[in-house]
Amino acid sequence: MRKVAIFIAMSLDGYIAKPNDDLSFLKQVEKENEDYGYAQFTDRVDTILIGKRTYDYVVREIGASHYDNGERDVYVWTSTARPSTGRVQFYSGSLPELVSRLKAEPGKDIYCDGGAEIITELLKHNLIDEFIISVIPILLGEGVSLFKDGRPEQNLEFISSKSFETGLVQLHYKRK
Amino acid sequence: MRKVAIFIAMSLDGYIAKPNDDLSFLKQVEKENEDYGYAQFTDRVDTILIGKRTYDYVVREIGASHYDNGERDVYVWTSTARPSTGRVQFYSGSLPELVSRLKAEPGKDIYCDGGAEIITELLKHNLIDEFIISVIPILLGEGVSLFKDGRPEQNLEFISSKSFETGLVQLHYKRK
Repeated sequence: MRKVAIFIAMSLDGYIAKPNDDLSFLKQVEKENEDYGYAQFTDRVDTILIGKRTYDYVVREIGASHYDNGERDVYVWTSTARPSTGRVQFYSGSLPELVSRLKAEPGKDIYCDGGAEIITELLKHNLIDEFIISVIPILLGEGVSLFKDGRPEQNLEFISSKSFETGLVQLHYKRK
Repeated sequence: MRKVAIFIAMSLDGYIAKPNDDLSFLKQVEKENEDYGYAQFTDRVDTILIGKRTYDYVVREIGASHYDNGERDVYVWTSTARPSTGRVQFYSGSLPELVSRLKAEPGKDIYCDGGAEIITELLKHNLIDEFIISVIPILLGEGVSLFKDGRPEQNLEFISSKSFETGLVQLHYKRK
């Protein structure tokens, strides 16, 4: 069965960004030839789910080709439908329905690439199977919390934790 | 120099309790002869700082003797001063002043035993030197967040991480 996974970095106090989409705290763990398992993770993924705000951020900061490169199916979750471009589709329907449909199709794993809103929506419906969370050694103090209030309780099975020279600790869990 | 340290458990989504002081999620990591380093930690502590709400909770659930046992100086941070009992003092002044005074005195380390309010107040003044945080493999979904918004950014030095059979991961940082 295809799994829905997140692979994301947060500060020790649980933020994925400082106010105004400031991701500069991630620079402190950048290291040559160290991708913290990202390439290995994306190798087993053929589909990406992403929120519209995060998509727009990546398009603005990196370029549309980051997602629209023909390599993977990309579903951008948005309130305003838009025509597809290449393998990038804009989806304004129910997220549980989309995930059910994708899981019923053959394929590799499904990567929810953020942000916090789409992750919260998936968690509200208990739809995340695997969690790979990199904890950055910093307290940001304020910003966008990865986990918002008002989700159901969910037990996790611990898979592994791995620490790196930069002080990043990668925690790996799956749904119990 | 005496250090101020926290030693606390939180869910992966950053809660130290569910609503209504429900700590039952901690039961899943209870294991005979495994105290996750607590005794070793408290051995190097001779002073406890604690918030009034957490103090009341412990007195109600465990008994006043948990703190009032003559072993350590206990400062209960409260808005309403009250007479001391044994080595337990009720303190309604400035927390930074108390910490400065304690650090200027000789002694062992100082353990801030929670809750989130006093920890936030200490963090607002950058007064926590050491963080030992045990991550429990569960998403609680709602509750009392360990880290509240509106603190200054603080860089941490990663010391170690250790995982246990129960799936608990203990993260250890110090102030940079």
